[in-house]
Amino acid sequence: MEAGARWRCKYCGFEAPLTAYHWRCPRCGRPLDIAYQRRFEPKGRGVARYSGMLPLSPLRSLGEGGTPSLWLEIGGAKVLFKLDHLNPSGSFKDRGTSLALSLAKLLGYSEVVDDTSGNTGISISLYARAYGMSANIVMPATAPEGKKRLARSLGAKVIEAPDRGECPAIAEEMSKTMYYVAHTWNYLYVLGASTIAYEVFEEAGVPDMAVVPVGSGGLLLGLAEGFRSLIELGLSNKMPRLFAVQGYSVQPLAKALKGMEIKGEASDLADGIMVPNPPRLQEIARAVSESRGDVVLVGNSEVLAAMRELLDLGLVVEPTSAAAYAALQKLRAVASGRTVLVVLTGSGLKLDLGKILGP
Amino acid sequence: MEAGARWRCKYCGFEAPLTAYHWRCPRCGRPLDIAYQRRFEPKGRGVARYSGMLPLSPLRSLGEGGTPSLWLEIGGAKVLFKLDHLNPSGSFKDRGTSLALSLAKLLGYSEVVDDTSGNTGISISLYARAYGMSANIVMPATAPEGKKRLARSLGAKVIEAPDRGECPAIAEEMSKTMYYVAHTWNYLYVLGASTIAYEVFEEAGVPDMAVVPVGSGGLLLGLAEGFRSLIELGLSNKMPRLFAVQGYSVQPLAKALKGMEIKGEASDLADGIMVPNPPRLQEIARAVSESRGDVVLVGNSEVLAAMRELLDLGLVVEPTSAAAYAALQKLRAVASGRTVLVVLTGSGLKLDLGKILGP
Repeated sequence: MEAGARWRCKYCGFEAPLTAYHWRCPRCGRPLDIAYQRRFEPKGRGVARYSGMLPLSPLRSLGEGGTPSLWLEIGGAKVLFKLDHLNPSGSFKDRGTSLALSLAKLLGYSEVVDDTSGNTGISISLYARAYGMSANIVMPATAPEGKKRLARSLGAKVIEAPDRGECPAIAEEMSKTMYYVAHTWNYLYVLGASTIAYEVFEEAGVPDMAVVPVGSGGLLLGLAEGFRSLIELGLSNKMPRLFAVQGYSVQPLAKALKGMEIKGEASDLADGIMVPNPPRLQEIARAVSESRGDVVLVGNSEVLAAMRELLDLGLVVEPTSAAAYAALQKLRAVASGRTVLVVLTGSGLKLDLGKILGP
Repeated sequence: MEAGARWRCKYCGFEAPLTAYHWRCPRCGRPLDIAYQRRFEPKGRGVARYSGMLPLSPLRSLGEGGTPSLWLEIGGAKVLFKLDHLNPSGSFKDRGTSLALSLAKLLGYSEVVDDTSGNTGISISLYARAYGMSANIVMPATAPEGKKRLARSLGAKVIEAPDRGECPAIAEEMSKTMYYVAHTWNYLYVLGASTIAYEVFEEAGVPDMAVVPVGSGGLLLGLAEGFRSLIELGLSNKMPRLFAVQGYSVQPLAKALKGMEIKGEASDLADGIMVPNPPRLQEIARAVSESRGDVVLVGNSEVLAAMRELLDLGLVVEPTSAAAYAALQKLRAVASGRTVLVVLTGSGLKLDLGKILGP
């Protein structure tokens, strides 16, 4: 761990060493950042390759990061697909989890808890087990049985809440005796995702734009953080335009950026972007605006069509990843002639593809 | 495609250019090799990085190869886990499929067929779709519904044979009008697997030994081919000892090497090594003997225990991969103080882990 690394609240000025864990600002209740020295000295592979750009390294790699990327010409755009669904637990969340759970272990916790019914739950279940801690995953009773079963298979204890809204309170209550991962708050998930920017930078420089599914926003903020850090270190002078993808069903970012909701068909297939109140909503909106990006909304039929087209390209991903590709189709006029980063966030192999895609 | 590349039968001397496709020797019916010039000039990433060591490159990468590896100290051995379950379709087969289906496409085929109910079927379904060909997968009617469903989801046509024994004949019959992948015969699967040896060599040199699950033997023969080619090119002077892992239920290699079957518990969990008559059995036996290796047999309870231990290490793999780890446990005396390569062949995320591991 970097000796000087500190939690920092950019809202109220609270500061504390990284060794005193806070999942949010204990003074004002808002999300914390982490302040530390950055050095771009790539060495080794995966997330650990960018240890100099992180406040701590994964205790032990499970193979997270260092994912393949593919260039494809699509509708006049040069698209760089980053295959982050090929991470150890099948999603880009492993990058953040490797850091967040390393901190938990370094701080002496033997149990972790989080409220999540998606990829993060699978990721936390795996890393907790590998790092020798118990994982508790709070899910709504209505979450898909397959997700619960997979978390349990990996050794996690699944706590069922009556509905989604009660999950955070249950996890918070449990956090009195355990490390509350709080992945929608925890800045280590933003920093985990920032390593994608470094990998892309080393391989292909800075793209003109990135099309990014936004649930809690860790991926978008991570890319913003990563590309901005490269500018601050004098290694680049370019920020990609950040296009945030949400679904018509849940679109807090559209509301924040445009002051209104936009009507469209349901988008519940892309469950990774169904986060009604992301704690870092203001930061996400600012990152999108400052980069001269926008929010793009998609619906189920577009997501399904995109998922089939990605399969045609040989990419087996979940609907949330396909949402980004669907958004790219809507951005053709902007994307034409540009280099565009599309991060494929989660694997389709974890899902019952037949059920989603139909006959 | 390398201009001079030729199919070659080392048994009867038959030769033909690679552009005239034969899945086995048309003269004597035995397996064919491929003769071509090799140059070790790594460039780029994944399987295509070793184009100079292959008779052709993947037409288009789907992200195959270039998988992460992890060093772990286990029972006094330095074990290099090669995470090939993180390939695009979740298994190392993607390496061979990328070559075999590139050849099909180059030769103008619009349809491919193969008999396989395992990872290869999923891999072929994906690459056929991505390369713009139709895939036909012949499976026994008794194959797991999940496997059939996944192949269909990827766009393949699944042909159900009354039982396993009839699958090859059905596929052969269909080969009159399509490219018969014949992955247990097709040397491009051996060459695909050889790229694992090159990746390991570049990253860590030549290991002292490798513990390898053997079904049709493509992985073991690929490692042998790869490490031997490095010696022939003067880049190394060492061959790892090759330990072939089979299950008590189906052990043609034990019979070939020791002249007898060894009794033990059932091993049907590790379905990837349930191949009663691998076409290249003699070659496999020779590769094991010449490297001063051995065959190691495992049973279901050992496979299950190994699968749980691999999960403890953060590695979510299928039982066939766990079989190799189970075998490593039995080889502790030999492995102690040595560097040992263990290739993790297939992902556990495709499976119903809970059903396999129990509560």
